[in-house]
Amino acid sequence: MLKYVVGIDVGGTNIKAGILKNNGEILKTYSIKTEAFNGAEDVLNRIKNLVEKMLDENNVYKADVLGIGMGIPGPVNTDTGVVNFCANMVGWENFPAAEKLEKLTGLKVKVGNDVNVITLGEDWLGAAKGYKNVLGITLGTGIGGGIILNGHLISGTNGAAGEIGHMKVIEDGKLCGCGQKGCWEAYASATGLEREAVSRLRVNRDTLIWEVVNGNFSKVNAKVIFDAAKKGDKFALDLVDYEVKYLSIGLSNLINILNPEIVVIGGGVSLAGDILFNKLNKALEKDTLKVSLDAVKIVPAKLGNSAGLVGAAALIVLG
Amino acid sequence: MLKYVVGIDVGGTNIKAGILKNNGEILKTYSIKTEAFNGAEDVLNRIKNLVEKMLDENNVYKADVLGIGMGIPGPVNTDTGVVNFCANMVGWENFPAAEKLEKLTGLKVKVGNDVNVITLGEDWLGAAKGYKNVLGITLGTGIGGGIILNGHLISGTNGAAGEIGHMKVIEDGKLCGCGQKGCWEAYASATGLEREAVSRLRVNRDTLIWEVVNGNFSKVNAKVIFDAAKKGDKFALDLVDYEVKYLSIGLSNLINILNPEIVVIGGGVSLAGDILFNKLNKALEKDTLKVSLDAVKIVPAKLGNSAGLVGAAALIVLG
Repeated sequence: MLKYVVGIDVGGTNIKAGILKNNGEILKTYSIKTEAFNGAEDVLNRIKNLVEKMLDENNVYKADVLGIGMGIPGPVNTDTGVVNFCANMVGWENFPAAEKLEKLTGLKVKVGNDVNVITLGEDWLGAAKGYKNVLGITLGTGIGGGIILNGHLISGTNGAAGEIGHMKVIEDGKLCGCGQKGCWEAYASATGLEREAVSRLRVNRDTLIWEVVNGNFSKVNAKVIFDAAKKGDKFALDLVDYEVKYLSIGLSNLINILNPEIVVIGGGVSLAGDILFNKLNKALEKDTLKVSLDAVKIVPAKLGNSAGLVGAAALIVLG
Repeated sequence: MLKYVVGIDVGGTNIKAGILKNNGEILKTYSIKTEAFNGAEDVLNRIKNLVEKMLDENNVYKADVLGIGMGIPGPVNTDTGVVNFCANMVGWENFPAAEKLEKLTGLKVKVGNDVNVITLGEDWLGAAKGYKNVLGITLGTGIGGGIILNGHLISGTNGAAGEIGHMKVIEDGKLCGCGQKGCWEAYASATGLEREAVSRLRVNRDTLIWEVVNGNFSKVNAKVIFDAAKKGDKFALDLVDYEVKYLSIGLSNLINILNPEIVVIGGGVSLAGDILFNKLNKALEKDTLKVSLDAVKIVPAKLGNSAGLVGAAALIVLG
């Protein structure tokens, strides 16, 4: 029988929400301000009001809702629903978010890390549909990860599993936003690639990229770089090689450690398409054990911008 | 009621076996030659004969045996009991070892990777007793690993999970036995440390180590190095710093990725004791995220030489 599920994607600035059929079809999406400065209890109260509005507007009875899945931007124990903390958000330290929202709404609530649940969404409806051992990687401002083993999302001892972006790939390498050095995301995230591009542009401007950004360093982004590479621009193609090289080092480590069936790559960098994936598959041969490389395929993510709330809903549907 | 369990540790040269009470007490251990050149079927036949002898000599009825756990030196899917392959052993490619040995013995059989199951043994009776999220690391000839998450041993898609020794820690670094470069085990295994010691001894012999090995490079091993370090030998203490530095890089990566409660370190290097562990705990602060470092403790393994067969038996008892 048809049931419904609510997905909530809590960000530092906005809360995105959606009501979905349990087959994954999205009925309608919503967005409200997080107003994180008012504290965690206030955020949950406004989520409760939003959920009531969503059910009302879509003529869904509460009895037909399987539950609410919520992704939050911090480490969280998915089994207990207790949030460890959320950076830049007030009052989320050791906060039993699932239990509190269950009391407010009368619905079953599961809470997961926002980046981890993206992988769960890809496992439910996206590129990893039907797979049991999945590694999800998001190459954006940083590098986030989600690990599904034997069909279960791994959240670790206090919800911090999947922090793959801070794996060290270069000894005492580039400074990372976390304050440490040589982290994977300092190289292979979209930001890492853009940073390298700007660094090179300071000494060499013989490239389409320079024309497109019209001399404005702040306009250099992953899309501009990949667009130029697709047109055969040498400078941009060298940057693709840079991205592939460091992406391969970290990804090989993860494949050696976890032996996944499928790796789903999302985020800005993944939009490069074949020009990236073809080179990446070749590069992985250098650093990955054959037995594990033979077992895995590397694919782009499918869910795009709805990944966060679909993944949150997947906490209920797959959990 | 008291039951029994059989643990079998299949190596390339010898098969070690033990019959244990289900509380972990070892009644008696056995050892036979593997004679791997005769093929997998022959090995299983001789294991069957050995098991019958063990039950007979210890007056144990087959009806009181919970099952046989077997560790083998290659990737294996613990859920299906199918071995992927065993290097240097004939006929183990895609070999359904558990099913075959069950038919031969009439007993339940579970098969795991020999290095993975050591961690399971530590979880059953050793240093990780009572923990659900465990990372086991063996620093010996190479670096092996075992990963337990939510109480379950992770074997991966085709049994190769936990191949942590081939994580790349230095870009295009030292050549590894696997043929690739910069692998963790090329630096932080006992062999890696000995290799660095010998390299340094070629240009500097102002150390106790040189006296102890009496000018014979082949006598340089982890124990000799740590013994000299404990006596305050500067050259040896520098080698401990080398070991700690590279051990920390790889271990930090694993802690960031998996967020374990406990890391159990075994093998020759772990015998160094406090001189290693104190420095390691300090070094980890440089490369590990605080949230995950706060959640974990690093301890030496407890089971020693019996780890292989105890861990194999744990496949049955904890499985």
